[in-house]
Amino acid sequence: VTRAAVLGAGSWGTAFAKVMADAGTDVRLWARRPELAKEIQATRRNPDYLPDIELPAGIEATGEAAEALAGAELVVIAVPSQTLRANLEAWTPELPDGSLLVSLMKGVELGTTQRMSEVIRDVTGVPQERVAVVTGPNLAGEIAEQQPAAAVVASVDPARAEQLQVACTTNYFRPYTNTDVIGCELGGAVKNVIALACGMAEGMGFGDNTRASLITRGLAETTRLGLALGADPMTFAGLAGLGDLVATCISPLSRNRTVGWKLGRRMTLDQVLADTRQTAEGVKSCRSILDLAGKQGVDMPITEHVVMVCQDGMRPTDMVARLMGRETKPE
Amino acid sequence: VTRAAVLGAGSWGTAFAKVMADAGTDVRLWARRPELAKEIQATRRNPDYLPDIELPAGIEATGEAAEALAGAELVVIAVPSQTLRANLEAWTPELPDGSLLVSLMKGVELGTTQRMSEVIRDVTGVPQERVAVVTGPNLAGEIAEQQPAAAVVASVDPARAEQLQVACTTNYFRPYTNTDVIGCELGGAVKNVIALACGMAEGMGFGDNTRASLITRGLAETTRLGLALGADPMTFAGLAGLGDLVATCISPLSRNRTVGWKLGRRMTLDQVLADTRQTAEGVKSCRSILDLAGKQGVDMPITEHVVMVCQDGMRPTDMVARLMGRETKPE
Repeated sequence: VTRAAVLGAGSWGTAFAKVMADAGTDVRLWARRPELAKEIQATRRNPDYLPDIELPAGIEATGEAAEALAGAELVVIAVPSQTLRANLEAWTPELPDGSLLVSLMKGVELGTTQRMSEVIRDVTGVPQERVAVVTGPNLAGEIAEQQPAAAVVASVDPARAEQLQVACTTNYFRPYTNTDVIGCELGGAVKNVIALACGMAEGMGFGDNTRASLITRGLAETTRLGLALGADPMTFAGLAGLGDLVATCISPLSRNRTVGWKLGRRMTLDQVLADTRQTAEGVKSCRSILDLAGKQGVDMPITEHVVMVCQDGMRPTDMVARLMGRETKPE
Repeated sequence: VTRAAVLGAGSWGTAFAKVMADAGTDVRLWARRPELAKEIQATRRNPDYLPDIELPAGIEATGEAAEALAGAELVVIAVPSQTLRANLEAWTPELPDGSLLVSLMKGVELGTTQRMSEVIRDVTGVPQERVAVVTGPNLAGEIAEQQPAAAVVASVDPARAEQLQVACTTNYFRPYTNTDVIGCELGGAVKNVIALACGMAEGMGFGDNTRASLITRGLAETTRLGLALGADPMTFAGLAGLGDLVATCISPLSRNRTVGWKLGRRMTLDQVLADTRQTAEGVKSCRSILDLAGKQGVDMPITEHVVMVCQDGMRPTDMVARLMGRETKPE
């Protein structure tokens, strides 16, 4: 039996721990707050993020990262993107030799503009063969309900991707392997930004034509950035690109879309964030993605406008009107 | 002032007539039923398809095709795909010399497996330079409400595409020109079939992960067919491919998605069609698209399964389970 540590008991960390346990993997789930770990262990539920889902017996919850990590062949990391470096610095001495480090995170680090797999390698010094990512159209709440879903597991080493694939294949979760780590990570990170823009448009009362145009142009700017960084353009047409983008932009369950929607309804960013327990990755990653694009000389107009709204105080009404290339009538 | 005939007063024909009139084009709108033409002319509304929209003064409605066609530089055709040939045979003697024949239709003819522009050329004998198509993420109801939308106008002759572009550019409708007529038409036709599949999945209670996977794999099979037929693969990543597909698959206003949703709710196809005034193109086009793919040796699994449901009586539950590659639990 494969042994895995899942570090981070938010909604996706918890749902993926369930997937792995359902796949027959022996899972230790680390929660940052010891009281949450205790409650998960006692009740087989995560009351904060997936209260209605009964977790399988194959998951042990713990508040001690060292306990979760001991003997793990797979180290699955699901913390907010901007906290990865600090968390990982603390965990590095405990990482088992030869373990595969798996990122569930979808973001780009502020300041360094590193993708999550790059942060992992930067902090731990492991070779790229020991890093993998999981991505695709995978809304945590639907996966936890065992709705059928396709996903992507990517590593530059196909054997490592297959090792991960086996550890998370169930009758409702079907992962496909891929070797384009760069493309998979960029697709996952930029879609959060595009989902913010879609949410804003929807909150302002724009319809599905506008959302479809934003999704189309959003995927185009993601692909441009990916090409500049050496990704395979086909990745963006697949589950890790288009699939993840569409799921995030259409789902009422998507946090980034919901944050965008509230901004579109004229709430301020401070009000919205005070209202939200979970992390909307795009609010911070938009800046680092735009910086990354700037270094590559790639034009990303939607991302640029999301930065203006989330960081520079532009009103979403002005943003959508500018993106659609014209002034629109007031509602 | 450019003079245009719009042949067909369904929701998209009527909405596009409004777009052209708002762009300053002189429009005659032909309705098959003379009483509808009279009512549009008298009330400036189309009570059957867009009852809440006031039509601009630049539209004259008529029940006489010859009257609509007299002096038209642009002949815009918006009839159900499977009726195009018979309609056009009647109109051909009246087509003004040198006029541009513009298809708003999204289908493939049963039997011949011809795209709409091919049917137009087959019946009228005009050279391909005199045919154009309009496509993109353009839900008629939203366009009629003047929500901002991007679109594509395609002709192998860039000058003809620009002629059409000028005749339909307004402050809410922004058409981009394209020369890939094949790709634009295929994107528009196949998306109706994928929207049926998405609607079925949704009607059965599947969530956004499943819908996003169907959209992703649907675009992949559309692109495969396009490549075999000589289309530009980039077309499918743009507004005429991805954009139109996403708008149709996510919108509650989409007829094909709605028909699929009802099938997913266990209504029979006969019940659904009896319930629907408007044409759901995909119900018939799925067969001709599958035939076209068969001639090219292209595998289109989603289209194949939609044909099984719409023509061979397969239950949607079996279809989605087979497409997702596994048996699912009953609801």
